[in-house]
Amino acid sequence: MLAEHMTWIEYRDKVKHSVVILPMGAFEQHGPHLPLNVDVIIPTSFANLVAAKVDGMVLPPVTYGYKSQPTSGGGPLFPGTTSLDGDTLTHFILDILRDTYRHGGRKFLLLNGHYENVAFATEAVDLFLREAKDVKIVILSWWEQVPDELVPELFEGAGFPGWDTEHAGITETSLMLFFAPELVRKDKIIDDQAARIPKYAIFPPSKDIIPASGVLYKATYASLEKGEIICKQVTDVIVTIVKQEFNARSQ
Amino acid sequence: MLAEHMTWIEYRDKVKHSVVILPMGAFEQHGPHLPLNVDVIIPTSFANLVAAKVDGMVLPPVTYGYKSQPTSGGGPLFPGTTSLDGDTLTHFILDILRDTYRHGGRKFLLLNGHYENVAFATEAVDLFLREAKDVKIVILSWWEQVPDELVPELFEGAGFPGWDTEHAGITETSLMLFFAPELVRKDKIIDDQAARIPKYAIFPPSKDIIPASGVLYKATYASLEKGEIICKQVTDVIVTIVKQEFNARSQ
Amino acid sequence: MLAEHMTWIEYRDKVKHSVVILPMGAFEQHGPHLPLNVDVIIPTSFANLVAAKVDGMVLPPVTYGYKSQPTSGGGPLFPGTTSLDGDTLTHFILDILRDTYRHGGRKFLLLNGHYENVAFATEAVDLFLREAKDVKIVILSWWEQVPDELVPELFEGAGFPGWDTEHAGITETSLMLFFAPELVRKDKIIDDQAARIPKYAIFPPSKDIIPASGVLYKATYASLEKGEIICKQVTDVIVTIVKQEFNARSQ
Amino acid sequence: MLAEHMTWIEYRDKVKHSVVILPMGAFEQHGPHLPLNVDVIIPTSFANLVAAKVDGMVLPPVTYGYKSQPTSGGGPLFPGTTSLDGDTLTHFILDILRDTYRHGGRKFLLLNGHYENVAFATEAVDLFLREAKDVKIVILSWWEQVPDELVPELFEGAGFPGWDTEHAGITETSLMLFFAPELVRKDKIIDDQAARIPKYAIFPPSKDIIPASGVLYKATYASLEKGEIICKQVTDVIVTIVKQEFNARSQ
Amino acid sequence: MLAEHMTWIEYRDKVKHSVVILPMGAFEQHGPHLPLNVDVIIPTSFANLVAAKVDGMVLPPVTYGYKSQPTSGGGPLFPGTTSLDGDTLTHFILDILRDTYRHGGRKFLLLNGHYENVAFATEAVDLFLREAKDVKIVILSWWEQVPDELVPELFEGAGFPGWDTEHAGITETSLMLFFAPELVRKDKIIDDQAARIPKYAIFPPSKDIIPASGVLYKATYASLEKGEIICKQVTDVIVTIVKQEFNARSQ
Amino acid sequence: MLAEHMTWIEYRDKVKHSVVILPMGAFEQHGPHLPLNVDVIIPTSFANLVAAKVDGMVLPPVTYGYKSQPTSGGGPLFPGTTSLDGDTLTHFILDILRDTYRHGGRKFLLLNGHYENVAFATEAVDLFLREAKDVKIVILSWWEQVPDELVPELFEGAGFPGWDTEHAGITETSLMLFFAPELVRKDKIIDDQAARIPKYAIFPPSKDIIPASGVLYKATYASLEKGEIICKQVTDVIVTIVKQEFNARSQ
Repeated sequence: MLAEHMTWIEYRDKVKHSVVILPMGAFEQHGPHLPLNVDVIIPTSFANLVAAKVDGMVLPPVTYGYKSQPTSGGGPLFPGTTSLDGDTLTHFILDILRDTYRHGGRKFLLLNGHYENVAFATEAVDLFLREAKDVKIVILSWWEQVPDELVPELFEGAGFPGWDTEHAGITETSLMLFFAPELVRKDKIIDDQAARIPKYAIFPPSKDIIPASGVLYKATYASLEKGEIICKQVTDVIVTIVKQEFNARSQ
Repeated sequence: MLAEHMTWIEYRDKVKHSVVILPMGAFEQHGPHLPLNVDVIIPTSFANLVAAKVDGMVLPPVTYGYKSQPTSGGGPLFPGTTSLDGDTLTHFILDILRDTYRHGGRKFLLLNGHYENVAFATEAVDLFLREAKDVKIVILSWWEQVPDELVPELFEGAGFPGWDTEHAGITETSLMLFFAPELVRKDKIIDDQAARIPKYAIFPPSKDIIPASGVLYKATYASLEKGEIICKQVTDVIVTIVKQEFNARSQ
Repeated sequence: MLAEHMTWIEYRDKVKHSVVILPMGAFEQHGPHLPLNVDVIIPTSFANLVAAKVDGMVLPPVTYGYKSQPTSGGGPLFPGTTSLDGDTLTHFILDILRDTYRHGGRKFLLLNGHYENVAFATEAVDLFLREAKDVKIVILSWWEQVPDELVPELFEGAGFPGWDTEHAGITETSLMLFFAPELVRKDKIIDDQAARIPKYAIFPPSKDIIPASGVLYKATYASLEKGEIICKQVTDVIVTIVKQEFNARSQ
Repeated sequence: MLAEHMTWIEYRDKVKHSVVILPMGAFEQHGPHLPLNVDVIIPTSFANLVAAKVDGMVLPPVTYGYKSQPTSGGGPLFPGTTSLDGDTLTHFILDILRDTYRHGGRKFLLLNGHYENVAFATEAVDLFLREAKDVKIVILSWWEQVPDELVPELFEGAGFPGWDTEHAGITETSLMLFFAPELVRKDKIIDDQAARIPKYAIFPPSKDIIPASGVLYKATYASLEKGEIICKQVTDVIVTIVKQEFNARSQ
Repeated sequence: MLAEHMTWIEYRDKVKHSVVILPMGAFEQHGPHLPLNVDVIIPTSFANLVAAKVDGMVLPPVTYGYKSQPTSGGGPLFPGTTSLDGDTLTHFILDILRDTYRHGGRKFLLLNGHYENVAFATEAVDLFLREAKDVKIVILSWWEQVPDELVPELFEGAGFPGWDTEHAGITETSLMLFFAPELVRKDKIIDDQAARIPKYAIFPPSKDIIPASGVLYKATYASLEKGEIICKQVTDVIVTIVKQEFNARSQ
Repeated sequence: MLAEHMTWIEYRDKVKHSVVILPMGAFEQHGPHLPLNVDVIIPTSFANLVAAKVDGMVLPPVTYGYKSQPTSGGGPLFPGTTSLDGDTLTHFILDILRDTYRHGGRKFLLLNGHYENVAFATEAVDLFLREAKDVKIVILSWWEQVPDELVPELFEGAGFPGWDTEHAGITETSLMLFFAPELVRKDKIIDDQAARIPKYAIFPPSKDIIPASGVLYKATYASLEKGEIICKQVTDVIVTIVKQEFNARSQ
């Protein structure tokens, strides 16, 4: 399923009928307990699971994303957070879409793991549609596919703060415990949150809207079990979407 | 307060100490009952009210915005919806910030009335901060300043669908009845909504996620009175933000 | 006629057969007696008058234009003068043309009120024509439509300095007295001019080529009556052009 | 004086104190009697003459310019007319200025021979000034330096049509007869002009505003003698400007 | 050493004194026996080995590179080959350098595995140096570090064709057998070459300059042992370069 | 053959069937004995000779090229070396190709004289091919057409250092002695070379990889006779290529 491991001959035979999945991540701080590529690992893991069920093909992911914002990712001042300008990200995605289309790809799923990417991926798709005909493209973010029913269970005891601040918090930490436990510094998992969370953006960021740890919520409520549950349910939701929107068959 | 009505001498004396407000709107369909410039009228009206209370200066607004999306504005296929590429919008805002800074502006409020603008305005601000020192900038959208306590009252009988789909719906129609009643076709006010509202984006858009009228929710629940309440409370919230973030004094 | 006040349904029915007028202005100093948006008010006023006579549609104007030059507008150093980079202006206009074309617009009049805009609007049109077929576009500046016969009358006693330096001078002040008298600071109207007007451009500008007031000629010779005459005759000329070039019918 | 013929050692010693002249031309039709590079030959010839008198240095010229317009150059439809996009020309000039500045150049004369270049050269200079300090730059077009007193003599018998339409006409043909007579097809010199010359621009161009020959005025009134007179007087004017603006000394 | 597996705290402590290595690859056909990401695996493997010896830090690699050319990579027509426009690649690298510099990185090694990337990486570095001071950057391609003495041994029996055509040939196949044997389809290894190899580029490509298999030379001469030798010697060369150019210490 | 000396009528009749040759040079130091435009003179001279034999048409050359690199041209620090950003060069060439195509050109030879231009010219051609159909384009550099058999003779006594460092060395000096002897400072011809020539690029450049004179090899081995031989043989090779690739007939 991983396009990068295919030969060109294997790719050729697959690209034309498969749903082509582009995971979109970032290189961004995720607290003292998670590695900088959480936003790559999570959507790539989902992409692999989905591809396995719908005969999909997974492209090499977007590994550097759009600029982290304070209230959704801690912002640019954390060491490590390394981002692209909006125009760079847009053209990066556009060029990948254009060349994949040239090879016969017509069904695209942009599976996002980094909130700030969405608008610039949308722009890439819009520019792409000026050139490409007979394509269908879906952009989705994994957390928006978490069933509403599951939320109370996941956030029991902690309270649901909204998805915005679920950065390096319960769900991301749980998924990392499930997908890549060797990368989680379990002894460094903490609860944290901003002194205040304004409903507007401030530039340059004020210190009081950013937790010093980079953890935007209560990571100690995370668990491998929660990770497994999210994984299973979100994968199912995405598979359902893919089948519905692309008429993809199950494997 | 309107910079466009000042002479350069009046502007000169004011720009250096005032909060400079840039309303950000769009040229976008708003159903059969509202004009195409709703997203300009509302933030400009708020800007004028806020400026009056904090000795602010209002710049000519952004009148064409980023591309309307189906689930938040009906999307690009409605006649009239006329949008800028992301890069154009970013540089448009950047150029305005740069020149205003050159004249002495140091406190900027980007007061937004069109959801899709936010990411590209954010990029403009980030690029601006590479050049400009000693500035402070706030980006806010008016609907995010509606107090949570007010929501049940506003949506009584209709139910609150989330702000995304509040397009040409209860709050926008109410505010237009208050700010510009002569532009509201009262006999054309209807309730509508999409057959389904997916938690992902589809390109090109499916017909079933777009109401044929362009009204994304129940506009008949709007009223002038609700408009007045929203106006008053949101203005107060924004004034409070401006005072807090910019140390602006009341007039 | 104002597209911004139409609903999308009204716009849809009109855009396909109407001449679509885009007024192009600027945000630029105009002396101690005129507001910063003179270059928006004048072409928008002409656009409205013309549209009324030829069943046209007026788009929201270009409110920030290309960079003011010393000998035609006083230059960038006057507080308030807020301009776009050339490339930004070109893409701003291009995006508007592209989307209006997408909705069915085929006849475009770019009605200009700011000298420095012309080249970048021309570039926008040229880039647009690479994509768009079956369109016709006219770019005109209002002062070039002042009949030659009218010039001696307008400049009697003052002498005609050429259109370049008619900035915040007799014709612009007269038109503002007619179109928007409430915005004219009548007690501040003065005569001024540069110590010298070189036939070349100097960067950065020399002080002696810029009048300190921002008035490039003798504004005291302006009058409401002259404004009315210019208004009537220029409107007639533009209507004639529109009819000739677009086969538009009178209303 | 020609920088292109210098070694780097000669260039190094000269660039810091000299006025650096960049001739700006185009590759554009000039009727049946003149070659496509008229707009390069004329400003380069002036540049050489001026440089000889003020110890200047002449850079390799801009040989492809901005897009020819129908009423000032015949427009893009004439075979041969080969133009740059506005943004390309702006960055071409900007890059040259930037690197010459890096080597010590501080006094720049952009000596133009193609009307349509001016705005994009102006933009290049403005962008350059964002980076460069302690520079002075003059942009001038040679025809604007023709003394007004000389006009009646040059156009005797033909009438002066304004500089716009002096394309492949009396002055350009005269200068070419003087600067490069071997490139003038003397038996092909004709008089021509457009059926009408509108005071606005039409896209795509109408046939009736373009003379079929590409000659926009009466070339038969040209003569080598007129070329010599223009050459001498315009050179003197430019030398005077250079001395005044750059405090350059005579050689 | 892998920055992507660090937390922001680990990254912060390391970025300031380490040599930061950015592997640069591509997504490009490599014959019937090698996967599409050969050009990522090889430089990333070298980067890891080098980093281990000089206390370096390895950034997430460039996974999509510049456009494959027929005589060095088979060209764009092979399915799978998915490339970026030159400007996209340049800004992608520039943005990564800029943000890493912001966090304290001052020593950069761009370790290249795809020939066509070099010029656009060079441009990125040049643009970066306009902003960044006190940095040192080295760009190198792994094959240029193969000691000349090793060439006869590696190509014994096959003949050395020059590095240009060593695409999916002896050295790349050998390195893949050593670095990632599970990705090599050993039964598909073949010898191939173009019918002719012109010393110029042809667009669109002629069929006769491209081997149908995508293998540009004799892959059957590859072996795991050769891969190990190349790996060891090239790693040593790069370590020596890093020590010399960055004064890096051995671990 | 020189398009710049044609009238538009002559151009029109020729462009459609001729091979259109665009010489690509640079403005770059070439030691104490050669002028800054060596890289323009050489390919333009070849272009003229080739055009004469295959009924070609020569466009005005690229006179400013991509940035000189230390090991192939001495680098940016030599006074005089004046270069374009990569994107500027790409669009410069693209715009020329696009407009020549518009006039009927379908066969293009980009004849290069400056090593660093190649990648950006390649990008221009690739972007051009997205728009243009039924074209054929060849990019070649003159030194790659020097027959291998000729190398020992040319470098006898000096040794062949590889083409990279043949900058202002034996072949360029010889060709200049043949093409433009009046521009060669014969008394300044020297031998020089870098203290070391690394197989990687260093930014900013180290002094020890750049000869202080700007001569990268032994120029004293140059001679007019060698220039004549190279000229003749390379011209023949290029003529053969043109005939083969474009089915051009001899004159």
